[in-house]
Amino acid sequence: MVELIQNFTAGEADLMNADKIPDIIIGRLPVYLRALQRLSAKGIQTTSSQELGEIVGISAAQIRKDISQFGEFGKQGTGYSIPFLIERLKDILKVDRVWEVVIVGMGDMGHALARYNGFANRGFIIKMLFDNDPKKVGQKVGEFEILDLNTMAEKIKQNKIKIAMLTVPAAAAQEVAEQLVKAGVKAILNYAPTSISVPAGVRVQHIDPATHLQRMTYYLE
Amino acid sequence: MVELIQNFTAGEADLMNADKIPDIIIGRLPVYLRALQRLSAKGIQTTSSQELGEIVGISAAQIRKDISQFGEFGKQGTGYSIPFLIERLKDILKVDRVWEVVIVGMGDMGHALARYNGFANRGFIIKMLFDNDPKKVGQKVGEFEILDLNTMAEKIKQNKIKIAMLTVPAAAAQEVAEQLVKAGVKAILNYAPTSISVPAGVRVQHIDPATHLQRMTYYLE
Repeated sequence: MVELIQNFTAGEADLMNADKIPDIIIGRLPVYLRALQRLSAKGIQTTSSQELGEIVGISAAQIRKDISQFGEFGKQGTGYSIPFLIERLKDILKVDRVWEVVIVGMGDMGHALARYNGFANRGFIIKMLFDNDPKKVGQKVGEFEILDLNTMAEKIKQNKIKIAMLTVPAAAAQEVAEQLVKAGVKAILNYAPTSISVPAGVRVQHIDPATHLQRMTYYLE
Repeated sequence: MVELIQNFTAGEADLMNADKIPDIIIGRLPVYLRALQRLSAKGIQTTSSQELGEIVGISAAQIRKDISQFGEFGKQGTGYSIPFLIERLKDILKVDRVWEVVIVGMGDMGHALARYNGFANRGFIIKMLFDNDPKKVGQKVGEFEILDLNTMAEKIKQNKIKIAMLTVPAAAAQEVAEQLVKAGVKAILNYAPTSISVPAGVRVQHIDPATHLQRMTYYLE
């Protein structure tokens, strides 16, 4: 009964960041954090690399190795303190603060993300929604009013927002991504069904259902 | 101007499938396939591990190593034949056929996926949509009529459907996942903001925006 919670990684031990922590390890940390937060929500205080491994579908040896990159977190045989490890992972991943996020493109996907209730206590808060459709601008989605795309660059700069979720049609994705980058955005979660090019120093994660499905068909009969 | 198209992997070289191809490599193949199909769409016939690496954000050495797991695909110095590599990857990933997929939960996310135009030539076709809300059942989304959740198990069995996208609220996710598994589904793309437990032999990929965002905040200033 193991769920393979699978992580989204750049896939490369040799893609190093400035601190020389391999990108592939950074990619697994949010998966560990999510599992630990769920254990914590059940009132559980300690865990082992074995238990964590069974939850996330990663070997205990790999988990110990990954976590040891950031210091000593548990003694042999006593397991990890969940609250301590959560705090440390939140600190490492810089989600010990709350990042403001904008959503650009208020179609079905934009609405779904604006209403998504999985961001709480994860380090993110939706701050603004944008669309270029005059019929949508001014409408409300929950507590948010949809703002005019023409005002986006200015508002992102004013609020020093660094993160955007891009949910525009494929044909508009590259142009909007460039506007986001120009306004100071450094991380884009791209839901548009196309790839986007960004300058060095800007991160993109592409959420592509077909790629994620192809990840599983290999194992089907 | 390199986009880090990042792959969704189980993260483990030691999670082996029956054929002993590491799961982590299988996780990168859909990312290579997507990049190759985009090059092919531009009329490009050959590529190198360097060029492919720049597109997907994975080292050339890793790409050569991954691809060599499945046989000889290119000669030193002449690069890879794109059409040949595409065919081979589609074959390996079993997307040289078309898999029928159901969507369960016709909220914003279900609608977004039902209308998603990124599945063409990727190995998947949406076959049926389900919801349990009497107001939604019978409504049309594009060419599809939303069907009653009560008929789901029977219809999935009849059509021998193996893949589902789960877009129900968190509170319903585990119960619906169990119904899907009982009806024969072997692969679930889980968009619900919760983890689900499935028996061995069933694959789950969790699309969790917060986890994907946390993957990037590490790199932000």
